[in-house]
Amino acid sequence: MINQIVIIGSGNIATCISKAFKSKGLEINQVYSRNLAHAVELAELVSAQAIDDLTKINPNADLYLIAVKDDAIEYVSNHLEVKGIVVHTSGSTPVDVLHKHKKHGVFYPLQTIKKEHQPEFITMPILIEGNHEFELKALHELAEKLSGQVYEVTTRQRQSLHIAAVFANNFTNHMLAMAKQLMQDNELDFELLKPLIIRTALNAVENDPLKVQTGPVMRKDSATIEMHLDLLRNKPTYRQVYEMMSQSIRDFHSVKYQ
Amino acid sequence: MINQIVIIGSGNIATCISKAFKSKGLEINQVYSRNLAHAVELAELVSAQAIDDLTKINPNADLYLIAVKDDAIEYVSNHLEVKGIVVHTSGSTPVDVLHKHKKHGVFYPLQTIKKEHQPEFITMPILIEGNHEFELKALHELAEKLSGQVYEVTTRQRQSLHIAAVFANNFTNHMLAMAKQLMQDNELDFELLKPLIIRTALNAVENDPLKVQTGPVMRKDSATIEMHLDLLRNKPTYRQVYEMMSQSIRDFHSVKYQ
Repeated sequence: MINQIVIIGSGNIATCISKAFKSKGLEINQVYSRNLAHAVELAELVSAQAIDDLTKINPNADLYLIAVKDDAIEYVSNHLEVKGIVVHTSGSTPVDVLHKHKKHGVFYPLQTIKKEHQPEFITMPILIEGNHEFELKALHELAEKLSGQVYEVTTRQRQSLHIAAVFANNFTNHMLAMAKQLMQDNELDFELLKPLIIRTALNAVENDPLKVQTGPVMRKDSATIEMHLDLLRNKPTYRQVYEMMSQSIRDFHSVKYQ
Repeated sequence: MINQIVIIGSGNIATCISKAFKSKGLEINQVYSRNLAHAVELAELVSAQAIDDLTKINPNADLYLIAVKDDAIEYVSNHLEVKGIVVHTSGSTPVDVLHKHKKHGVFYPLQTIKKEHQPEFITMPILIEGNHEFELKALHELAEKLSGQVYEVTTRQRQSLHIAAVFANNFTNHMLAMAKQLMQDNELDFELLKPLIIRTALNAVENDPLKVQTGPVMRKDSATIEMHLDLLRNKPTYRQVYEMMSQSIRDFHSVKYQ
């Protein structure tokens, strides 16, 4: 059973997961960051020891949670001399980069996480991988302390899920940022769009985004599309995104013009 | 005061607005469609007369609501011989196409509307235009019977708002459709993405989509971006959308690579 945890990293995911563990009565033993001030900041929140030297990591904890940038995971892993389970929290990184450790796995929370806003963990899917039954079971139990949505997936599935999440969150949020900017440029209050934004998300989860697609492309309304492109003539990025998304909707739904 | 209404059209907007008017005690006098069966279908729902001949339109109603495809609005307007206020419901069409009628305006509900799901009108912004004070006042009163969010806007503002709505709904929904397809292609349950989809929308309305942007571009994580593009190598449209959106996020947030 996992009880004592060492957190490696002090960013968005490290912070929010540490706080969630702590709130469930788990012990955060140490927080490591290359930047001691960052380590101290998080360590204070969760009553842990702050360190900035990998050689000072407690070798006897149950779990080492590596929540650093993807391209630093392998380096950190190779510098850990520990006996407990070593996991990373990345959507894209293969589990194998942790091969140095006999017990290793993945603990990937599928949510957009900013440390300024502690997310709700209970509905957040947590995707786990483990290299043996033992680790899988321990990680499953741990994840279930935080969330009602725990799934075992393969590396390939996790990577696909991460790409889908990039579309569903990163790109969708950027669309909303572009919409907001367009409103501001025309002295329109962003408030006006909010019911539409909420309805769009609800339609996608209550119905099916493939079935609720609306808009000028679906109506084969080429006059409106032309007019929009003309109104966007001084905003080349908006125009390009508008054209590509319209084309993509047309292909996806096989919209044929008469 | 507007009491007797003639609906021209029988599609998504015509249907949902007719039902909303009816539920507020207004009288739907006639429903016109080129296709009589469609007119009958809607007319029966709102206890109106169904017609498929523009010359049979009652000339004495208070309001004529044209909810047809954008490129048919002018034609329909030019064939109406009536005294009441004539409005269209389009986000993009200039109010001037209704110039034949002394009293005219726009009644644009800003929401994604499918007749299969009657939307909630009370929180739905309704944007109105009128060519005189009289019509504006009458349309304002009418819109306020349905919604707590009624705004007078210019044609230019309405058109900009419509473009922003295309980004916030049509393109966003298409992103979600692509995400769903990616999940299905990898035998992953779309359920897994639903908390992220709802959180994305809530973040945008509670915080600010410009401030909550996350993802590999924001982390300058080019290894992950390359890996995603490689995993999408057999899906050229997905790849193209991925590349363009990543570039757009990079430009928008001035992400600089070291």
